[in-house]
Amino acid sequence: MTPAQIDAAAQRLKGHARVTPLLNAPLLDAAFGKRIFLKAECLQLTGSFKFRGAWSAVSALPPGTRGVLAMSSGNHGQGVALAASRHGLTAVVVMPADAPQVKIANTRAYGAEVVLYDRATDDRDTLAASLCADRGLTLIKPFDDAQVIAGQGSVGLEIATQARDAGIDAAQVLVCCGGGGLSSGIALALEARAPGLRVHTVEPVGFDDMARSLASGTDQRNATTTGSICDATLTPTPGTLTLPILHRLAGPGMTVTDDQALHAMALAFTHFRLVLEPGGAVGLAAALFHPTSDPVICVASGGNTDPASFALALSRFA
Amino acid sequence: MTPAQIDAAAQRLKGHARVTPLLNAPLLDAAFGKRIFLKAECLQLTGSFKFRGAWSAVSALPPGTRGVLAMSSGNHGQGVALAASRHGLTAVVVMPADAPQVKIANTRAYGAEVVLYDRATDDRDTLAASLCADRGLTLIKPFDDAQVIAGQGSVGLEIATQARDAGIDAAQVLVCCGGGGLSSGIALALEARAPGLRVHTVEPVGFDDMARSLASGTDQRNATTTGSICDATLTPTPGTLTLPILHRLAGPGMTVTDDQALHAMALAFTHFRLVLEPGGAVGLAAALFHPTSDPVICVASGGNTDPASFALALSRFA
Repeated sequence: MTPAQIDAAAQRLKGHARVTPLLNAPLLDAAFGKRIFLKAECLQLTGSFKFRGAWSAVSALPPGTRGVLAMSSGNHGQGVALAASRHGLTAVVVMPADAPQVKIANTRAYGAEVVLYDRATDDRDTLAASLCADRGLTLIKPFDDAQVIAGQGSVGLEIATQARDAGIDAAQVLVCCGGGGLSSGIALALEARAPGLRVHTVEPVGFDDMARSLASGTDQRNATTTGSICDATLTPTPGTLTLPILHRLAGPGMTVTDDQALHAMALAFTHFRLVLEPGGAVGLAAALFHPTSDPVICVASGGNTDPASFALALSRFA
Repeated sequence: MTPAQIDAAAQRLKGHARVTPLLNAPLLDAAFGKRIFLKAECLQLTGSFKFRGAWSAVSALPPGTRGVLAMSSGNHGQGVALAASRHGLTAVVVMPADAPQVKIANTRAYGAEVVLYDRATDDRDTLAASLCADRGLTLIKPFDDAQVIAGQGSVGLEIATQARDAGIDAAQVLVCCGGGGLSSGIALALEARAPGLRVHTVEPVGFDDMARSLASGTDQRNATTTGSICDATLTPTPGTLTLPILHRLAGPGMTVTDDQALHAMALAFTHFRLVLEPGGAVGLAAALFHPTSDPVICVASGGNTDPASFALALSRFA
């Protein structure tokens, strides 16, 4: 992948995705003794950075494309639904039948047809493949796709500009990491535009496939993909496109506990007046609770959390 | 007051206050059947628009000014504290001794000296006057001051530009109203830059001194200034500078209930991933629960709420 692909994606995103602000909070800086900057991607359309990659991929499809399909019960599905709908394309989102009702309803409200499957009896990949074949749909992968990575890279282009405007030319950039689409896109953009800014992936403790893969240089797997509240970051293993990029440009990876993520959510409530989801708060958690650079930049990747999780974070840590 | 005063204030604010985004949320629009735009001033430094007026006033002080004084247990005090500290000036903030500890602590953390008084036995105005006289401090009023109004007017300049970029040339602009500094500043800016946008003040039911004053053309008072959760908007009566401006340019005023404000907070959590304080949510509440223009623009004026109030809003309405 080249910087030109990210620039091209950013051009296609212009006027369609939001340029999100890079925020800081004087009292938080004072309390933690360092300057902490937050890239507020929770303010992106659909509430997460996933809209960027989805738009980038959908807008790069050849003329005559009938529609798209995504397999996601979360932010990727919502991003693809809205991006497709705004391109006048059909979107089918394959979700488990036991996904939260609000996620199903939101994905439909963004314009997608939701196809439900039974986790116990259906094979998701087979179902998706047959839908694609029968209806002529194009699969939009969540991270292991060059156009998706290029779209997420537009976050890095904005960070490069915003950091320069804030007088920052060297810092750690802490990015939540599932399959690595966001972190690899940002790393590529920063290599080209702000080489003093270095990406570190952040994952929940126990789900640090990327940190271990970066350390070993080979693809590592998580033992499970359930058991952390940071559901947005729980992928089994790094992508085949993303790992080589991150191995060259990023790391070492960091990990945070669920409690640290909840604590970061509470501090984001107080100091940034932002709603972060647990997986979207791990970058801030790493900035707060690990030794990091001063200044440090963290990416708040999404804000789609349920009221109960948010109230829990407030009751325990605000 | 003239548009040139607002332009001059905006110039002084440049690089010091944030340009806050004008956001919209596709699913909220769909649910309410109209396009709703939110000016996210809760993302301003110190968490409310008050920083703009404070910076405008402090930056306009003559050379040789020793320091400033504000009477405020809330957002105005925090705005003055940070603006003064960043100008290298002493700030004294006079607060009731029974103000929440977190507000006292925050005001100190922004760099101010906090002087506490006893609501039962001390006269706040006398105390403030004697502090100003003894220590050569300049009083920064919360709204009835031309430089403060000019600073708040910078919100209106940004709305004019952002609305034009969004293709909006006619809309109601719903602004929370205490003394009227924010709404009058915005109204003046829009008169000059976006005359199709008209300000309507929004107040809590039972505290609608501005709405009644606009309707009658004469200064009306609230019977009390306690009893609503929207504490940021509870002033006894309109300002002498603000009422004539609003009478000429704004209205009719609107009112919302405390429950409507809490409901708007919950919807801002879900759809904008923003934390609003109750008083900062009344504009959105009016947009949602009153017949309004399509599109409608509401100003989310602040986000300094305590976790308990926020959790209450979520538990009841999210």
